[in-house]
Amino acid sequence: MIKFATVGTGWITESFIQAAKLSEQYQLVGVYSRNEENARKFANQYNASNYFTDLEEMAKNEEIQAVYIASPNSLHFEQTLTFLKNKKHVICEKPIFSNTAELEKAYQTAEENGVYLFEAIRNIHTPNFKILKEKLHLAGDLRSAILPYMKYSSRYDLFLKGEEPNIFSSLYSGGALVDLGVYPLYLAVCLFGEPMKVSYHPVVLRSGVDGSGTLLLNYKGFVCTILCSKIVDSMIPCEIHGEKGTFVLEDAAPISEIKFHDTHTKESKILSVDQEEQNMVYECMNIADIIETNNHEEYEQLKDWSSIVLRITEEARKQNHIVFKAD
Amino acid sequence: MIKFATVGTGWITESFIQAAKLSEQYQLVGVYSRNEENARKFANQYNASNYFTDLEEMAKNEEIQAVYIASPNSLHFEQTLTFLKNKKHVICEKPIFSNTAELEKAYQTAEENGVYLFEAIRNIHTPNFKILKEKLHLAGDLRSAILPYMKYSSRYDLFLKGEEPNIFSSLYSGGALVDLGVYPLYLAVCLFGEPMKVSYHPVVLRSGVDGSGTLLLNYKGFVCTILCSKIVDSMIPCEIHGEKGTFVLEDAAPISEIKFHDTHTKESKILSVDQEEQNMVYECMNIADIIETNNHEEYEQLKDWSSIVLRITEEARKQNHIVFKAD
Repeated sequence: MIKFATVGTGWITESFIQAAKLSEQYQLVGVYSRNEENARKFANQYNASNYFTDLEEMAKNEEIQAVYIASPNSLHFEQTLTFLKNKKHVICEKPIFSNTAELEKAYQTAEENGVYLFEAIRNIHTPNFKILKEKLHLAGDLRSAILPYMKYSSRYDLFLKGEEPNIFSSLYSGGALVDLGVYPLYLAVCLFGEPMKVSYHPVVLRSGVDGSGTLLLNYKGFVCTILCSKIVDSMIPCEIHGEKGTFVLEDAAPISEIKFHDTHTKESKILSVDQEEQNMVYECMNIADIIETNNHEEYEQLKDWSSIVLRITEEARKQNHIVFKAD
Repeated sequence: MIKFATVGTGWITESFIQAAKLSEQYQLVGVYSRNEENARKFANQYNASNYFTDLEEMAKNEEIQAVYIASPNSLHFEQTLTFLKNKKHVICEKPIFSNTAELEKAYQTAEENGVYLFEAIRNIHTPNFKILKEKLHLAGDLRSAILPYMKYSSRYDLFLKGEEPNIFSSLYSGGALVDLGVYPLYLAVCLFGEPMKVSYHPVVLRSGVDGSGTLLLNYKGFVCTILCSKIVDSMIPCEIHGEKGTFVLEDAAPISEIKFHDTHTKESKILSVDQEEQNMVYECMNIADIIETNNHEEYEQLKDWSSIVLRITEEARKQNHIVFKAD
């Protein structure tokens, strides 16, 4: 059992706590909130033995082995460093940090302190992702992929009224690509590797971050098109197109259904399995396994993917002069 | 009644003849094929009073008022000029010509000879396209669009075996963008106008033309992504995304169904009407109306769209060193 604590009290933290419980590999021992009332309530609600309003104090607590961080994006880096320096494993919600300089520094700090640092990204840990990766060869030579993740955010209503919610703020390292685009981008990187060329065509909002955008990844003989948005809705699934067939993925995250359409026979078949409704459980389990078995090989693979994804989003932002305060 | 003749004896020509008949505004009086046997058979099959194996001879025939051309792309220009110079209206199948130099020359020749030149593009003449254009404002500020047209061509099987069918040949001005991409590209141009910036990411085949590709059109505050391919299959519909709602189009051509999804109420409604199964009939009728009523305004609009589309595909090719023999 990994004794863990949480930073952040939003729905994503609740989701992680539920998933951790479901995995039977974690025990919640602490929660943090800046606000004492919130911290106490949250601890009570999830039977955590401790609550904290001081991050340093929590980091020094000897019972805690790992910390799950789901604060605003721009706080991830400093908070992560605090825990790593105190020899806690860190599971940091996506997007892990604002830029690669932060990521390198954090991985180095993790190594120096003999602990692990993970980016929490649910889709690449699921059984259906593993099936997809294993069956990808059925499509023959890949020629294109279209991976959309576009959801109108209710916070955009506030933005339109003149406010600036974190997720639309450069101060808080927000924007569509880093917030939603990372889901399909992770799929692309984990399935196809690092692209030869990246180009991003964003719709930039008054706050200086992207509300929508099209990200192109050029591979040899093959182009992957990612669409992301927090200001419009899309209903279309993802597709991966090969000369022998097309994969249709119901969603980029979670990958609830995978259909394979054979171009020549015109037959379609479902390749996916039913997943846990609480699909973060797979991420929880994989991370716990790596920690408990000291699986360096798998850890290095995750580090690699995380680094490539962040390199791409950073390059995409730079091309378009989207600058975070953290840069 | 417009007395017309045809060049080409493929399925698309048969389709045009059927549509022309259905429109009740045309009368087929001649057909052309290089091969006399084919020409005679085709004339018999469609009750054309004349058949020709000599293009110049057909062009000089006094009964013929208009000619529909559906030969290989690279022949369109020269054949069109021959007919225009003989004062025949020309309806030339998409993609009209190889480049804008040819298009300008042809429009000029048409004007000098007091006849019209049309690019046959079925989707923008349909009732459902007109509904879409009229209702587009429902989506509010547009932020993105994704317009796919990807169909595995059976001729690609031949290409893979080492042959070079016209449609995959630079000699015949082939490739995915000019052959299939023009359908969604026409939608974009007719709905959104000329983009500020164009960028094309093709998969280039051994013959030097594109088998697949992603074309990006940048507009102010809005990005349109077009996917085209003749070497893979896609099943996804088109979408146009605005801040207030999303249009889902079953197909780029014909636009069989238009659904509008309201982002805020989450309600969807069908806006399209049932169209003629022989959907080329709308193109036939519009063109006949322009000729018969001398509707210069609508003609100039079509010319404009045709020019913008060709400028874009030419620019897209140039960016990627895709060169046709005709260039």
